[in-house]
Amino acid sequence: MSDRIANAQLRGKVMSAAEAAQFVNHGDKVGISGFTGAGYPKALPTAIAERAKEAHAKGEEYMIDLFTGASTAPDCDGVLAEADALRFRTPYQSDPILRKKINDGTTLYADYHLSESGMYVEQGFFGQMNVAIVEAVRITEDGSIVPSSSVGNSVEYLDNAEKIIIEVNSWQSEELEGMHDIYRINRLPHRQPIPITAPEQRVGSTSIDIDINKVVAVVETDAPDRNAPFSPVDEISQQIAGHFLDFLEGEVAAGRLTYDGYIMQSGVGNVPNAVMAGLLDSKFENIKAYTEVIQDGMVDLIDAGKMTVASATSFSLSPEYAEKMNAEAANYRKTIILRPQQISNHPEVVRRLGLIATNGLIEADIYGNVNSTNVSGSRMMNGVGGSADFTRNGFISSFITPSVAKGGAISAIVPFASHIDHTEQDVKVIITEYGYADLRGLAPRQRVEKIIALAHPDYRPLLEEYYDRALSMAKEKSILQTPHDLVTAFDFHKRFLETGSMK
Amino acid sequence: MSDRIANAQLRGKVMSAAEAAQFVNHGDKVGISGFTGAGYPKALPTAIAERAKEAHAKGEEYMIDLFTGASTAPDCDGVLAEADALRFRTPYQSDPILRKKINDGTTLYADYHLSESGMYVEQGFFGQMNVAIVEAVRITEDGSIVPSSSVGNSVEYLDNAEKIIIEVNSWQSEELEGMHDIYRINRLPHRQPIPITAPEQRVGSTSIDIDINKVVAVVETDAPDRNAPFSPVDEISQQIAGHFLDFLEGEVAAGRLTYDGYIMQSGVGNVPNAVMAGLLDSKFENIKAYTEVIQDGMVDLIDAGKMTVASATSFSLSPEYAEKMNAEAANYRKTIILRPQQISNHPEVVRRLGLIATNGLIEADIYGNVNSTNVSGSRMMNGVGGSADFTRNGFISSFITPSVAKGGAISAIVPFASHIDHTEQDVKVIITEYGYADLRGLAPRQRVEKIIALAHPDYRPLLEEYYDRALSMAKEKSILQTPHDLVTAFDFHKRFLETGSMK
Repeated sequence: MSDRIANAQLRGKVMSAAEAAQFVNHGDKVGISGFTGAGYPKALPTAIAERAKEAHAKGEEYMIDLFTGASTAPDCDGVLAEADALRFRTPYQSDPILRKKINDGTTLYADYHLSESGMYVEQGFFGQMNVAIVEAVRITEDGSIVPSSSVGNSVEYLDNAEKIIIEVNSWQSEELEGMHDIYRINRLPHRQPIPITAPEQRVGSTSIDIDINKVVAVVETDAPDRNAPFSPVDEISQQIAGHFLDFLEGEVAAGRLTYDGYIMQSGVGNVPNAVMAGLLDSKFENIKAYTEVIQDGMVDLIDAGKMTVASATSFSLSPEYAEKMNAEAANYRKTIILRPQQISNHPEVVRRLGLIATNGLIEADIYGNVNSTNVSGSRMMNGVGGSADFTRNGFISSFITPSVAKGGAISAIVPFASHIDHTEQDVKVIITEYGYADLRGLAPRQRVEKIIALAHPDYRPLLEEYYDRALSMAKEKSILQTPHDLVTAFDFHKRFLETGSMK
Repeated sequence: MSDRIANAQLRGKVMSAAEAAQFVNHGDKVGISGFTGAGYPKALPTAIAERAKEAHAKGEEYMIDLFTGASTAPDCDGVLAEADALRFRTPYQSDPILRKKINDGTTLYADYHLSESGMYVEQGFFGQMNVAIVEAVRITEDGSIVPSSSVGNSVEYLDNAEKIIIEVNSWQSEELEGMHDIYRINRLPHRQPIPITAPEQRVGSTSIDIDINKVVAVVETDAPDRNAPFSPVDEISQQIAGHFLDFLEGEVAAGRLTYDGYIMQSGVGNVPNAVMAGLLDSKFENIKAYTEVIQDGMVDLIDAGKMTVASATSFSLSPEYAEKMNAEAANYRKTIILRPQQISNHPEVVRRLGLIATNGLIEADIYGNVNSTNVSGSRMMNGVGGSADFTRNGFISSFITPSVAKGGAISAIVPFASHIDHTEQDVKVIITEYGYADLRGLAPRQRVEKIIALAHPDYRPLLEEYYDRALSMAKEKSILQTPHDLVTAFDFHKRFLETGSMK
């Protein structure tokens, strides 16, 4: 048995994943660790999927409601979705099989802000949680859990579930201990200010104390996190990164930012990674991140001495960088802090720190409303994630995106967003490879020209044609605040659904 | 000269409104006090409007950019709009003439969250503010301003404008002094936690300290605040209030609320007033308000001993209640606190206190997205106000509305909201005279039936027909997360624009 289980009582609970899965029943609400491909349980999902398949083969019902930190990985969301074992899922996902099951109606999916999903569990909005399954680096003598490569909503699930299953993963470096900062917000009506006033501040403990009498099983694993490698930085990502840096330089010139005052929040992906590569050669120093995930580009910034602290709730590293983090965790934990996602994304802290939020999007409309979730208004991609936590409350909120997707068939700029996750009041800057639109202080009609200029040239005439028509109709009726022609507002999407292209 | 001007230097600045208006130039960015019809400057707006009319008669340009707390009154927004003196306006308005000018294209209007508008001024998002015009109850010996019946964004405008004009209004009771709690958040990067952990806490001073060398004029006035009387509570409002109270009772039964734990945020209007009338006879005690405006119903709750504290940024009282407040301010200031709107609406405090948010809406769609601002997607009503500050961050966020408007021509429930200010992630409960829909924890398709049940019976078949069509199309394409038929999504609005009725 692994010496990573220091608590005697819990050593007595060690069993196989298949045995532990017997504690997870049909209809259970199951909250697990995991945020992106990091820190999710490696063994139980497959064991639960096996139970589901056996039950289904016998004609019996077996489905669970699954609550996570955010997305997980093929050997978690993927195997469970494949086995038709997920009745309900929240708050964020990105596995292709699960996405298919959500969109074909098998799995019900509720999209919530990542800072709020754990709070809703505490507040009883989902009813009683049955089981928490959490990956640990080790279990301390007093039975506390040292989380692994993410914290996510583990605290809320451990606090609120009736039963606890712990996976102790010996693949995860023991040197991760000390990197976490576990802080609980008191329950209503006893909430107090969160005492974080700088990204580097630690305000909690390094492990999660639990009620060990709730632990029904401990399972030993030795399996890697799963995150996809990033693509090499392409030309379009580089152009977007260049415009983003121009925007930052403009803020410095205007006196609204200093070269050592940039606090970064960044969504995950190739474009953000290009931005970070651009920052390596920039004048910005002492960059701090108060964000959701630590990605490769931030590790490079740390290595280069450009980034002095990175606070997040999870890693989202390529396999190569994940190996490096495991090998050098004792060193990186001087600079990296992993917090519960309720804290990493909390509006209170985000607004106080004054960070610059940078997220991707599916589409923005000509007035600056942003769709982050539903393709053509109906098909769920991944969910809103933490984008709204940061966008609403950031000092400046930006969105970065290539102007087209699917080889030009989808325009990121449309007449009317087919789903809206970020409202016009919140979206301040949009950036594509064609430049940036600074929307601050502008009324809707003043934004249109700037936003259309971000579109791919193939789409600009179609967007101008729409706006001209909407404007002339609105003039006729004196409804000029936000001119729209509701008859043709979704023509881009209709064409896409009919022909496979918005053109 | 009034003895309300205790500072000698500022006594030397007393002049007429017409003289003071000479400090306000074409193109100036002017920030004024005022929130609903309370605490706005009474003399300068008319004097500025006169300047504009004279200039226009001579063929000269004269327009200002006007920043307020929220809406004002006919003798402020109204006279300025009538004179075509407003080039730009933010963050909220409700004057009929101004609304017309916004929708006919004369005035550019930018809609922002009320907790953020003052912060944006501080952060330099609108450029240099030129003039602040603020109503005071009195000026203290050291030159500080005791605000009158609202605080709004006065602190931010006074701090950031080049010139200050003070109106000392002797109609306002001097006993209002002591009711205000002026707290400034440090500027970035020095922000600290806001130390409010209960609505009754005072954390600041009772007046606004200013740089008196920026004061260019002091104008004496004696004019009442202007707020419209509320209509008597009608049957539909009573039914909505009944359902709201049923919802609260259900929360108590579920253990998520206690009879002495209700912290209220409430939008303004007849339905909220009916809710407060209902609370008078309810089991709820020790009700606290942490909200934007104090309205008649809250005064009744205070008088009845049901409400023990009301924290807001402004009054929005009927003329009768405003007279009473003026007469008994010394008594009411034990229970009432007026704060800057950045504090009354701050996400940090709102989320910490755990209040139940209750706001109106223009329309909600069948998935729970809410439009608070633009009729038929284009015509601005009043703006988002503080509704999003409270909705996103409240413990439970509810919307209350009659099921139809304009004698049945407009349905409050539509297939697709024609503008979205509150996204599906944020809207938790919707209430009409037909009941309440508790949307917490539900995936989009699970919400539809509950929301359609809130619609007027005349509209239910049309909504069901839409959903059935959308569902069958989505099934065909396996895009079932949020089934929509984008071809007919806006048919309700198209019919309304063509025929004057959504039917």
